[in-house]
Amino acid sequence: MSRQLALNAFIYPAGHHEAAWRHPLSQPERIYDADYYQQIARTAEAAKFDAVFFADAPALAENVEFNAAGRLDPVVLLATIAAATSRIGLIATASTTYSEPYNLARSFAALDHVSGGRAGWNIVTTAAENASANFGFAEHPRADDRYARAAEFVDAATALWDSWDDDAVVLDKAAGRYVDTARIHTVDADGDHVRVAGPLNAPRPPQGHPVLVQAGASNAGRDFAGRYAEAIFTAHQTLHDAQRFYDDIRSRARAHGRDPRWVKVLPGISPFIADTEAKAKELEREFDELTVPAYGLSQLSRLVGEDLTGLRLDGPVPRELFADAGDVGNNLRSRKQVVAGIVEREQPTVRRLLHRLAGARGHRVVAGTPEQVADTIEEWFTSGAADGFNVMPPYYPGGLEVFAATVVPILQRRGLFRTEYSGTTLREHLGLPRPASRHAATSLAG
Amino acid sequence: MSRQLALNAFIYPAGHHEAAWRHPLSQPERIYDADYYQQIARTAEAAKFDAVFFADAPALAENVEFNAAGRLDPVVLLATIAAATSRIGLIATASTTYSEPYNLARSFAALDHVSGGRAGWNIVTTAAENASANFGFAEHPRADDRYARAAEFVDAATALWDSWDDDAVVLDKAAGRYVDTARIHTVDADGDHVRVAGPLNAPRPPQGHPVLVQAGASNAGRDFAGRYAEAIFTAHQTLHDAQRFYDDIRSRARAHGRDPRWVKVLPGISPFIADTEAKAKELEREFDELTVPAYGLSQLSRLVGEDLTGLRLDGPVPRELFADAGDVGNNLRSRKQVVAGIVEREQPTVRRLLHRLAGARGHRVVAGTPEQVADTIEEWFTSGAADGFNVMPPYYPGGLEVFAATVVPILQRRGLFRTEYSGTTLREHLGLPRPASRHAATSLAG
Repeated sequence: MSRQLALNAFIYPAGHHEAAWRHPLSQPERIYDADYYQQIARTAEAAKFDAVFFADAPALAENVEFNAAGRLDPVVLLATIAAATSRIGLIATASTTYSEPYNLARSFAALDHVSGGRAGWNIVTTAAENASANFGFAEHPRADDRYARAAEFVDAATALWDSWDDDAVVLDKAAGRYVDTARIHTVDADGDHVRVAGPLNAPRPPQGHPVLVQAGASNAGRDFAGRYAEAIFTAHQTLHDAQRFYDDIRSRARAHGRDPRWVKVLPGISPFIADTEAKAKELEREFDELTVPAYGLSQLSRLVGEDLTGLRLDGPVPRELFADAGDVGNNLRSRKQVVAGIVEREQPTVRRLLHRLAGARGHRVVAGTPEQVADTIEEWFTSGAADGFNVMPPYYPGGLEVFAATVVPILQRRGLFRTEYSGTTLREHLGLPRPASRHAATSLAG
Repeated sequence: MSRQLALNAFIYPAGHHEAAWRHPLSQPERIYDADYYQQIARTAEAAKFDAVFFADAPALAENVEFNAAGRLDPVVLLATIAAATSRIGLIATASTTYSEPYNLARSFAALDHVSGGRAGWNIVTTAAENASANFGFAEHPRADDRYARAAEFVDAATALWDSWDDDAVVLDKAAGRYVDTARIHTVDADGDHVRVAGPLNAPRPPQGHPVLVQAGASNAGRDFAGRYAEAIFTAHQTLHDAQRFYDDIRSRARAHGRDPRWVKVLPGISPFIADTEAKAKELEREFDELTVPAYGLSQLSRLVGEDLTGLRLDGPVPRELFADAGDVGNNLRSRKQVVAGIVEREQPTVRRLLHRLAGARGHRVVAGTPEQVADTIEEWFTSGAADGFNVMPPYYPGGLEVFAATVVPILQRRGLFRTEYSGTTLREHLGLPRPASRHAATSLAG
């Protein structure tokens, strides 16, 4: 079989466009209900998507006044989705800075067990500085400390998942022996940031380890991704930037001694779809016109680190705001670089820039016919920019339904995307190997 | 309507009898599968139970070799059960010692949202000393420190649930205003053990607060229960002991200024049921004979704090082992007191005592006909010993199915138990009021 696209449905409460909740196509009154998310996941599963995915942060979003920004715990949402689906992968974001490794390893192990091997963990160190005060920290840890803890945390979590051998449960009723204790191992992680004795109190997850996902775009984030991530969510506006990122990540994976085939790069794409390009662009315009400028200016102010709330909406964007956007030292700066590129290429008014960013927080927005959306997906997929896409519908649930009904069949006809699932686990969907336990050699020798 | 029993199904992997997994009536090969727990919950819901309940500890159980003791995260299990049911309450155990308040408040809020108001939190401070090493603690905190943290933790969690007023989401699409920020409040908990700024990043749960459940039998545990708990799980062997406990808890609730009607006391009962008493006792004997004495002796050694593995199984239990069992300073000691009572009343051999404890870890085991089981439930319910029961089937799923099919109809015919749900939330099932937000008065004034 030829190389196949991976497609995730990135679920965002009312949709990825910041004004989605104000548009009649969205359903913001349902965003705290299980059946809303189950419906979205069933749509994605019927279209044979690899996974659904939830972002997360353990803090209230900024400017919640203007945004349908309440967030339910993604593991709980995915567990209810697991019960309503049978094949689709279930990827939850969880923070290494603001979680305990033992608790997190348990909840993702449980999600993998109850879903029959469909769990993925999007590993974040949490960029939201206001999270720290929810956990009694004097301040949000610096990025290098966060990544140092993240590395120890992931090492501990994978060790916990490996703490029961795959065959630890012997279930010998006659002898009265439930597990072979020689096949259960302590972890004894004793690092600068993480100390966990183990073992876990549950069997090894069906996938060995839930799929490790990562989205950091900073230098530290990319290095972490090269070392650990099996799927990477990323944001690019241009094919060129996406190709550079793709090559960079694969080099970093190789530098960590990994096979780059087992690192899937999935840029975000937020599609407005209609039967003519003009109608698609008109739909995008409708959404953009519902944005609240005070919200967009506040977000942009945070990005550049200056108060921009006095900027005239119909004047030009002052280019000096982005003079220092060359390096990608941290995630905010890498996002600033994306915005600097838009300003450089398009020389927009302030209003126009706010609209460009309203679509999907710096991810790529396309407005066109199903063929045009499929064309751009194919182009990026076949020119070394992507192994698939994190689909970010501007509005839910309809935005995904349109994509599933019109774009997916084109991708299937072109032989780029599956028409049936060939496996049952998220690893099988993504073509990723099941990791052997770190104790496998010992067990074979024993 | 007359006073109604509350009935919970306490779910334990293969069943509450320690040898359940060895008996052909249990299904231990299914204990990591969602559909196993969903089937059990559907049985309980069809019988109109108030709730299903999971115990938990963030550590591997002792003597796992002899016991089907792998434990999946209960919140994940309950979220999959929420998706497979529509009315039954969902109570998960979670530790105040080994969780972060913000994360725990979020996950229980999410469970309450996705289930339409069916969540309950069984608050534990974790007795398992080996948990501490899974969280980088030098040692397991002492009971008084654990309870001091638990009080701050529960205060912070309820404050987080109250941080959005019930009407905070205004969803004013025309004005572009999603929430009224004046109706979202910080928490600013700044205690010795817990510091949380808040607000939560999700709306107030449908029940206001998930139902607060507690099971500590020590003095500190009872005091905590009197202060916070809306339902109490407890273990008693005799009607007299249960009555004393019932009165004690209600006094403590009154001492904390609470209405004792809103504190439901639910002792455990583990029923072996058959159409004759002789057959029921024979079934119990079958299970007892499958116990592994090495396991029971090891558990008993922990309880009395002495190595008993050399005791002759067919000799008497040395009564001096229980000489100091008079006070209930901590949970282990209160359990020791239960065992001392059995030794005092029954003067069993060691083997017989191990069998007595194998049934449900010190909870009451009854073996009899459906009428006999219903009689003992009615007796305790009508003589000031219980508001209902935590039903602990010796084996799953069949042990619950037999109870639902034979005992529940008798209780219904006697007018003691509902034949239909009258409400949709766990609070409504238990007859508990929905707590007003601590900000409600302010909001009305505002």
